[in-house]
Amino acid sequence: MEDKRPLILVSNDDGIMAKGISELVKFLRPLGEIVVMAPDSPRSGSGCALTVTQPVHYKLVKKDVGLTVYKCSGTPSDCIKMARGLLLDREPDLVVGGINHGDNSATNVHYSGTMGVVIEGCLNGIPSIGFSLCDYAPGADFDAAGPYVRKIAATVLEKGLPPLTCLNVNFPDTADIKGVKVCEQSKGQWGTEWQACPRREGDNYYWLTGEFNDHEPENEKNDHWALANGYVAITPTTVDVTAYHFMDELKTWDL
Amino acid sequence: MEDKRPLILVSNDDGIMAKGISELVKFLRPLGEIVVMAPDSPRSGSGCALTVTQPVHYKLVKKDVGLTVYKCSGTPSDCIKMARGLLLDREPDLVVGGINHGDNSATNVHYSGTMGVVIEGCLNGIPSIGFSLCDYAPGADFDAAGPYVRKIAATVLEKGLPPLTCLNVNFPDTADIKGVKVCEQSKGQWGTEWQACPRREGDNYYWLTGEFNDHEPENEKNDHWALANGYVAITPTTVDVTAYHFMDELKTWDL
Repeated sequence: MEDKRPLILVSNDDGIMAKGISELVKFLRPLGEIVVMAPDSPRSGSGCALTVTQPVHYKLVKKDVGLTVYKCSGTPSDCIKMARGLLLDREPDLVVGGINHGDNSATNVHYSGTMGVVIEGCLNGIPSIGFSLCDYAPGADFDAAGPYVRKIAATVLEKGLPPLTCLNVNFPDTADIKGVKVCEQSKGQWGTEWQACPRREGDNYYWLTGEFNDHEPENEKNDHWALANGYVAITPTTVDVTAYHFMDELKTWDL
Repeated sequence: MEDKRPLILVSNDDGIMAKGISELVKFLRPLGEIVVMAPDSPRSGSGCALTVTQPVHYKLVKKDVGLTVYKCSGTPSDCIKMARGLLLDREPDLVVGGINHGDNSATNVHYSGTMGVVIEGCLNGIPSIGFSLCDYAPGADFDAAGPYVRKIAATVLEKGLPPLTCLNVNFPDTADIKGVKVCEQSKGQWGTEWQACPRREGDNYYWLTGEFNDHEPENEKNDHWALANGYVAITPTTVDVTAYHFMDELKTWDL
């Protein structure tokens, strides 16, 4: 008999061994049939990158009642393409990325492999959610996020999301969450991004690092503010990146 | 004496050896001082990916009057971060990505390393443009694009672009360009994305491939339509991906 429970496809960018994805699966399992297809190694900062210069492979890791786990040599976006294109016999009802070890609010949405998972689901018309916790530690504590993860996922399964729209959900690094805020993406810039890593004279090796300079740290509408003040930040996110506000002016240019 | 000509920072995702970037530099040189920082190998489909699991290095390739060229072991986004953070003594007046060997219209904007260059410039408040040609061949002919590249870049240098807004410019694969269209990002989905690449039994190796299914092939507002009909498609693109249209409804959810 066919399983009629919701089908939830899960991936992440920290890789299949990360605590965040096993915690996510634990929180989601009561909601449906779970299929995990996650990168076989950490892929932080991979955005929507695809693997085009070599073949990608996947491997079954385990199969339990209600939970099937695969690992994949590709990027987070590859994982979603591979599961949908090769393995699932129906479209997922929900795509979920995370729980990321680290903040994906503000401009981080562009670099985030967690959001790469989510954008891939959304581009294919599937309601999709990314979850991230503002704690980079491998042993980060996801307990406080759990009830919110489950409720947000259950609500999206029930209500759906508008076309071309997904959710970027970030949790503050606190056990004492004040509630949920629907937010705008904070504007700002990363600065001081390179730390020298000398090898030998003139070799110019650097680690990417940096700090985020929020342009409006006091703006209570923004996700970065919500997180700094103890709220869960839910930033509704579009995959239609057309700058509609600039079309009329651009049409007046003599090009 | 300080060079007061516009400073133009150039990168791409096909790598420093690609014809597209040398053609781009040729077209842009009359407009200002050019600094190239491009990946040392092809990085197609890298989106806004960053390199975080190993150090990134750069190397000076050549220095002429008005043209300095570096190569970098990182991604297209890393290239822009590295040039701005370590090498340039002032902010560029313009960041340009391309000319890509291949179409970056429609949903490709999310996967494109060329647009990774452009988004990185735009997030830092610099007017930024990506140029792509709908021809994947290494020896593609960029001649027809040349006058448009120069005019679009010169106009953006003169007028600037609104905050958080950049341009995604795609050229049709024809010597007979009909003109320029200001477009919206076409909506659609990639399908049939995996081609088996057998290694040995049960290994599940696949090449990423696929074809784009435009949801509205007859919609004359869209970039995919413009390209199919011989026009240069200019899609103004935002890096603020907040889904403002969904905020009020989302605030009514009980989360």
